[in-house]
Amino acid sequence: MIKSLKAVVLSSGGLDSSTVLAMAAAQGFAIYSLSFDYGQRHACELRAAERVAAAAGVQRHLVTRVDLRPVGGSALTDDIAVPKARSESRMAEAIPVTYVPARNTIFLSYALAWAEVLGAWDIFIGVNAVDYSGYPDCRPEYIQAFETMANLATKSAVEGKGRYRIHTPLIDLTKAGIILTGTELGVDYGLTHSCYDPTPQGMACGSCDSCILRKKGFADAGVPDPTSYAPQ
Amino acid sequence: MIKSLKAVVLSSGGLDSSTVLAMAAAQGFAIYSLSFDYGQRHACELRAAERVAAAAGVQRHLVTRVDLRPVGGSALTDDIAVPKARSESRMAEAIPVTYVPARNTIFLSYALAWAEVLGAWDIFIGVNAVDYSGYPDCRPEYIQAFETMANLATKSAVEGKGRYRIHTPLIDLTKAGIILTGTELGVDYGLTHSCYDPTPQGMACGSCDSCILRKKGFADAGVPDPTSYAPQ
Repeated sequence: MIKSLKAVVLSSGGLDSSTVLAMAAAQGFAIYSLSFDYGQRHACELRAAERVAAAAGVQRHLVTRVDLRPVGGSALTDDIAVPKARSESRMAEAIPVTYVPARNTIFLSYALAWAEVLGAWDIFIGVNAVDYSGYPDCRPEYIQAFETMANLATKSAVEGKGRYRIHTPLIDLTKAGIILTGTELGVDYGLTHSCYDPTPQGMACGSCDSCILRKKGFADAGVPDPTSYAPQ
Repeated sequence: MIKSLKAVVLSSGGLDSSTVLAMAAAQGFAIYSLSFDYGQRHACELRAAERVAAAAGVQRHLVTRVDLRPVGGSALTDDIAVPKARSESRMAEAIPVTYVPARNTIFLSYALAWAEVLGAWDIFIGVNAVDYSGYPDCRPEYIQAFETMANLATKSAVEGKGRYRIHTPLIDLTKAGIILTGTELGVDYGLTHSCYDPTPQGMACGSCDSCILRKKGFADAGVPDPTSYAPQ
């Protein structure tokens, strides 16, 4: 693959998207990473995304401010309590309060806009259908529908210059599989941030759904977990 | 139709979306109008959207800040000259520099998010395939693809609570047809703003594509044009 092909990679600073970034880079794409300042209750993940981008030597890292707070409706943007210490079977029962309405749709729409401006045809997103915690916008049929729409939405595609592809290289991987893949590619997971409810100092809580899945992933992969968890 | 059904209406303060808002209200929907502060070079259209919402007595008018400037690539957000005094055949030749990459996709994504939070299933957008000025994201096949995607993207739809519909009541109307429809519904077009390049005082330039189509629409409809155009 020619080195100069550009890809837009959605990067949250978390374990999954940081692995995706390394996978896209390993495929030879020049990486344009995109993070969103969307009124998260904490900014740790934005700092993590910057660290990951710098470590990976991306072409450009862009932080775009999108205000999801007026839309509301999620524990990640509103003052709704983040659930703690849930079993995996409990997590799978229903779509959790950490669901942000249409979040991936809004994020992919921005990625599409930036891709068109950059002349990139490839967009990478770290959605995962195994550990996806019940989010509807992490399923393959959703991604396929977005891709179809993207190719009808844009000047470049409609003029026949190319075809947008939404890459989801994690879609069928377990958390352990993701960690093993990233570890092989040299991802430093100590730079990444997954916790939904960190301490004011940015330490992971260790008991939200995201921390639980992360801990279990490292354990299952047999890879040491570099995360500093807050004392319980 | 039951009065309490809610609809999200994308409102730019322009002639088209103000007509759509009146059409949705005439169908009995409780209106939630949504405008975007996206780093437009001028804020006239946001003020117009507020005037139109107030005149229509909407349930709520929400202005969300979305920063499209980092994405760039359009005369509406960047310092690219707005084309003037073009003939309609010249406008139809190519997608114009006023095209903002993936703009309707980003806007509809926000509308979808708000609709899900409100419990609304109906989203109205004033796209038009006749006078659409060459924007790919104003075509029926694009809207259909967005609707399909929306129904796979969201918790409410995936849980089977309903089905999102993207309404495009202007899609087959000429500008004159839109003006006649709105006039019958009592829309005060003097409150609306269409110009891409207004004077610092907010007067319409009279010579950009949008002003030309607006003037011609009123002339073709045989309706007096209430717009104050700047002296040429």
